[in-house]
Amino acid sequence: MISQPIAAVILAAGSGTRMKSDTHKVLHPIAGRPMLLHLVDTVAALSPERTVVVVGARREQVEAAVAPHGVAMAHQAEQLGTGHAVAQAEAALAGFAGDVLILYGDVPLVSAETMRRMVERLHVEDAPAAVVLGFRPADAGAYGRVIADADGRIAKMVEYKDASPEERAETLCNSGLMAVRSADLFALLARVGNDNAAGEYYLPDIVMLAAGDGRASAVIETDAVEVTGVNSRAELAALEAQWQQARRARAMADGATLTAPETVWFAHDTAIGRDVTIEPNVVFGPGVSVADGVAIRAFSHIEGATIATGATVGPYARLRPGAVVGENAHVGNFVEMKKAVLGKGAKANHLTYLGDTEVGAGANIGAGTITCNYDGFFKYRTQIGAGAFIGSNSALVAPVSIGDGAIVAAGSVVTQDVAADALALVRPPQTAKPGWAKRFRAMMTARKEAK
Amino acid sequence: MISQPIAAVILAAGSGTRMKSDTHKVLHPIAGRPMLLHLVDTVAALSPERTVVVVGARREQVEAAVAPHGVAMAHQAEQLGTGHAVAQAEAALAGFAGDVLILYGDVPLVSAETMRRMVERLHVEDAPAAVVLGFRPADAGAYGRVIADADGRIAKMVEYKDASPEERAETLCNSGLMAVRSADLFALLARVGNDNAAGEYYLPDIVMLAAGDGRASAVIETDAVEVTGVNSRAELAALEAQWQQARRARAMADGATLTAPETVWFAHDTAIGRDVTIEPNVVFGPGVSVADGVAIRAFSHIEGATIATGATVGPYARLRPGAVVGENAHVGNFVEMKKAVLGKGAKANHLTYLGDTEVGAGANIGAGTITCNYDGFFKYRTQIGAGAFIGSNSALVAPVSIGDGAIVAAGSVVTQDVAADALALVRPPQTAKPGWAKRFRAMMTARKEAK
Amino acid sequence: MISQPIAAVILAAGSGTRMKSDTHKVLHPIAGRPMLLHLVDTVAALSPERTVVVVGARREQVEAAVAPHGVAMAHQAEQLGTGHAVAQAEAALAGFAGDVLILYGDVPLVSAETMRRMVERLHVEDAPAAVVLGFRPADAGAYGRVIADADGRIAKMVEYKDASPEERAETLCNSGLMAVRSADLFALLARVGNDNAAGEYYLPDIVMLAAGDGRASAVIETDAVEVTGVNSRAELAALEAQWQQARRARAMADGATLTAPETVWFAHDTAIGRDVTIEPNVVFGPGVSVADGVAIRAFSHIEGATIATGATVGPYARLRPGAVVGENAHVGNFVEMKKAVLGKGAKANHLTYLGDTEVGAGANIGAGTITCNYDGFFKYRTQIGAGAFIGSNSALVAPVSIGDGAIVAAGSVVTQDVAADALALVRPPQTAKPGWAKRFRAMMTARKEAK
Repeated sequence: MISQPIAAVILAAGSGTRMKSDTHKVLHPIAGRPMLLHLVDTVAALSPERTVVVVGARREQVEAAVAPHGVAMAHQAEQLGTGHAVAQAEAALAGFAGDVLILYGDVPLVSAETMRRMVERLHVEDAPAAVVLGFRPADAGAYGRVIADADGRIAKMVEYKDASPEERAETLCNSGLMAVRSADLFALLARVGNDNAAGEYYLPDIVMLAAGDGRASAVIETDAVEVTGVNSRAELAALEAQWQQARRARAMADGATLTAPETVWFAHDTAIGRDVTIEPNVVFGPGVSVADGVAIRAFSHIEGATIATGATVGPYARLRPGAVVGENAHVGNFVEMKKAVLGKGAKANHLTYLGDTEVGAGANIGAGTITCNYDGFFKYRTQIGAGAFIGSNSALVAPVSIGDGAIVAAGSVVTQDVAADALALVRPPQTAKPGWAKRFRAMMTARKEAK
Repeated sequence: MISQPIAAVILAAGSGTRMKSDTHKVLHPIAGRPMLLHLVDTVAALSPERTVVVVGARREQVEAAVAPHGVAMAHQAEQLGTGHAVAQAEAALAGFAGDVLILYGDVPLVSAETMRRMVERLHVEDAPAAVVLGFRPADAGAYGRVIADADGRIAKMVEYKDASPEERAETLCNSGLMAVRSADLFALLARVGNDNAAGEYYLPDIVMLAAGDGRASAVIETDAVEVTGVNSRAELAALEAQWQQARRARAMADGATLTAPETVWFAHDTAIGRDVTIEPNVVFGPGVSVADGVAIRAFSHIEGATIATGATVGPYARLRPGAVVGENAHVGNFVEMKKAVLGKGAKANHLTYLGDTEVGAGANIGAGTITCNYDGFFKYRTQIGAGAFIGSNSALVAPVSIGDGAIVAAGSVVTQDVAADALALVRPPQTAKPGWAKRFRAMMTARKEAK
Repeated sequence: MISQPIAAVILAAGSGTRMKSDTHKVLHPIAGRPMLLHLVDTVAALSPERTVVVVGARREQVEAAVAPHGVAMAHQAEQLGTGHAVAQAEAALAGFAGDVLILYGDVPLVSAETMRRMVERLHVEDAPAAVVLGFRPADAGAYGRVIADADGRIAKMVEYKDASPEERAETLCNSGLMAVRSADLFALLARVGNDNAAGEYYLPDIVMLAAGDGRASAVIETDAVEVTGVNSRAELAALEAQWQQARRARAMADGATLTAPETVWFAHDTAIGRDVTIEPNVVFGPGVSVADGVAIRAFSHIEGATIATGATVGPYARLRPGAVVGENAHVGNFVEMKKAVLGKGAKANHLTYLGDTEVGAGANIGAGTITCNYDGFFKYRTQIGAGAFIGSNSALVAPVSIGDGAIVAAGSVVTQDVAADALALVRPPQTAKPGWAKRFRAMMTARKEAK
């Protein structure tokens, strides 16, 4: 645990034009959750005293997204550089004394462990003025370079365009993430100038200003993957792929079989048990919990659902929020569940819609069953008792209750409650017109030929 | 623009035995369009005076495919080499004076820009006798080599098997594509011999013949990807993958989010708007246009459909030709649309077939609704008015019209028109047999045990 | 063919803890078949006199899986090393005189050809005491090394941890697979000690013991891919991917088009014809045979099915065991078939369940048709005649027979047989309540506002 108080400043003011989107860049999702909220979640794990999000373009979108998360907002009206952006957080951090982590809304997958290492580094050895998070990408390209000795003591921070050939040959790059004591941060920022080609106030300049005061800063390293940023939809897709790959590996390590791991997409909070089998092409949305021994067959799409031990789901099952699949229950092909509970051992195997419905243990829902839960204004509930048998192609018009052990004959439209152990039957007599089909064909064939 | 007249000769006579197919090789599709037609389309962008396709094996298939495209045909009765194949186009080009582009039906993705560069090169600097399109593959393997100086002046064209070790060390390869003035082309071809191991007339020989006349030829380079040829189904799949990868990148650059780009398949003419979201596993067939702000959810299959702004499609939506999804409309899971219009804000969310149907704005199509559009002979239309509500599990027997604001009760089979604002009801009384289910179970259990 | 008698010993006693599974490691499937059975099948192709599976942990699972395959079992009560495991097979091989192949249940994809090469090598040239199967992995890592001369004469077998730097620099690794004459095998094993860090009896020690007797052993090499072992779910997925990649390449080489090969999953026994087209995302379970000219569209899931020439399946078709799709028949979207035959040219295009059903040639099954084949106790058959037309949204309550050329009106629940050429109709009159919908909306709107 971290002993000193900490705060986080998350920069989210940039306009993200390369995304070509009406949605703010940091609100684009990874694993079904906006990038910014990945970061807010991770920071929360460090129990910060305050978290400040610096907003600018489309601030109302960002504010709405973080509103439920108890963070403070700061506004950067003009885009004058990262140093300027962090400076806008000063009022929101008034009275705070401790360490400040500077993070970026579009660098969402930094781990809590790395953040912890950053703030801890501030207080050991030579207690540096600032801690910079460095990384060594496969291609250092145009990243700013960190010139440091073997102990991580920084000699110089240099933008790529200002770097000498020797400096460009350095492979340690600046991720932009930093940890700085609050007492130092704003004092140093106040001294940062904008005398450069872009006319911007650069955050990394505080390192050199502190150095001018005789106070060294330190760099610690992390994996390039962790500080991958997102500036375009292609980079968003690449980061999503990276996240998914790691998540799939973890699912397998934990004892799930993924026949084709590259075709299973998890959400940020998917929980998967042991000896779970997942066939190719399964999509998990947020809010899914899968117990041990479950088989999820191909082409299933699962959001907000709970699946109990031994259940079988799919192929082609679509579970929407509020779906609860009981122990050893079966949800088969072309079946949709929404706010619906399927009891222990119950089966809904084919072409069915269960909405706002509770199905008792051991019940059998025939192919083509539809719960009619909506009248255009309100939603109503359907109750199906334990051991009930719903004949194929039936429509259950909610609100309606089918008793335990009751049977609904195939093709029925059930509008009244059915008592336990009763048979409900809605079926007019079948009539036959002998030879009619033959005459019809002759007539239609003639008509077709006449055309 | 190109100022001189141009013509294109596309070789498509080869039998393509490695495809193991009854379909001519050049008719196998990339992105839902036969390879040959990709090339015909690209050539058309250059406004050629004539396009000649040289056919041989399965010529009737090729002729049928290009018939609507206004190209001339030439027939190569025997497979005597590329030089011989091009020579067959002479009659079809009689009277044409200008530049001739020589292309290959199984090298389908050459860009118009590259073709333009080829013919333009014929008329600049030293005005070469021929322009050869060269490329540098990762593995030059057994490709013919182009020996040229730094300015692209060709010293020698050499088949791999005739090449010296020094020549084999050259990395610039001959794609086979050429641009030659018509006046030169057939005169040179007439002098090409077949005194080689295969007894074939080789097109590249015209370069050396021109050189013998003191006229140099030039090579220009392009990316290996662009001149990838297809000789087997594996190579067809590889070229498809390459095409898809480029198309996905373009969709993202234009402002669409693809959660898993590698699982989205576009067709040659798919149009995708900005802020469109595409979940994993979506297949586009030809003829699809997707407006801004549309969400296409997982496992959707979309052909010949138009989707308006803000609409949501899928998961598991199958849109067939003639499907039109209106602004903010919803097409949900296990729903099929064919020649069907879903009005603004209308919803068809579950287990539905809409064929030959028009649904008005704001209408709600209940789960399990089927339009019965076919009687075995003809197709008939269903008209559903604005704001209408079709109860679940209904069958609408076309031709039939449901008025604006009308309601169809769940489970109805509607055979007569329903007036605006009316309720249509087709429902026999529900009857109950108390205790019947219990007795039935007892009887069947006994029977099962007796077996 | 191999002339001498052979036997195989397959080691399957390890507990496989890294799988984190209640299922024995060797029973996890590749291509829909347990790893161990892949090996048993391959061995069977060599016509061995005996096959012995050495079991230990979870032996009952393994014994049940191999029970139908005529193999003998040996029990290794304690896990004391590979030498000890093989020694347990001695009783089961009593009286056998010939060559013994030593294989591993978690190295399932060794080819019959490689096995044959191993036993043949025992009887040529210097007739070595043992034949070791070696391989050269991309990263030799911690594999045991085989120190041999250019002719494959083994100088030393050394565990990685005991190897000198020079020995570690060798790239030839020991796969563990061996061929040894039965007369030598158990005599040598009896002399193997466990005087090592792990206290285990190592099988490779027999090579050095034979060498001490003046009898050389030989190593033959194979591709690293072939001897890939499985110790975790990630390795299982990797081996599955490798198998699938090879199978897809074979399908394409044989003349099938796979639009996106990486998204087609075959089973171990899938048979695919020529000019078959497979769209993206198709899953084959075991027991599928696809004839020439079939089109399998996207998102199809096919198990235990036979598909005849020219048929079209999918998109979103789910064929379960016993599905037979006739020549030129069509199975469309959201259609499930189980123990069901679709006759020549018959069509079931939308939202249909056909279970325990026979459909005659040319019949048309309307959208939303459900065969009600189950009453909670028994399954019953539905018979649909040639040329019959089943109207949409019908339920056919089995046992029931629809005659040739009969028509069932849309929305019918058919409980009685329908004669050939007759029309069956189950349809109450449609009633209308003019203006009802308008009044209903007014009432509900008021109620909604009141909430």
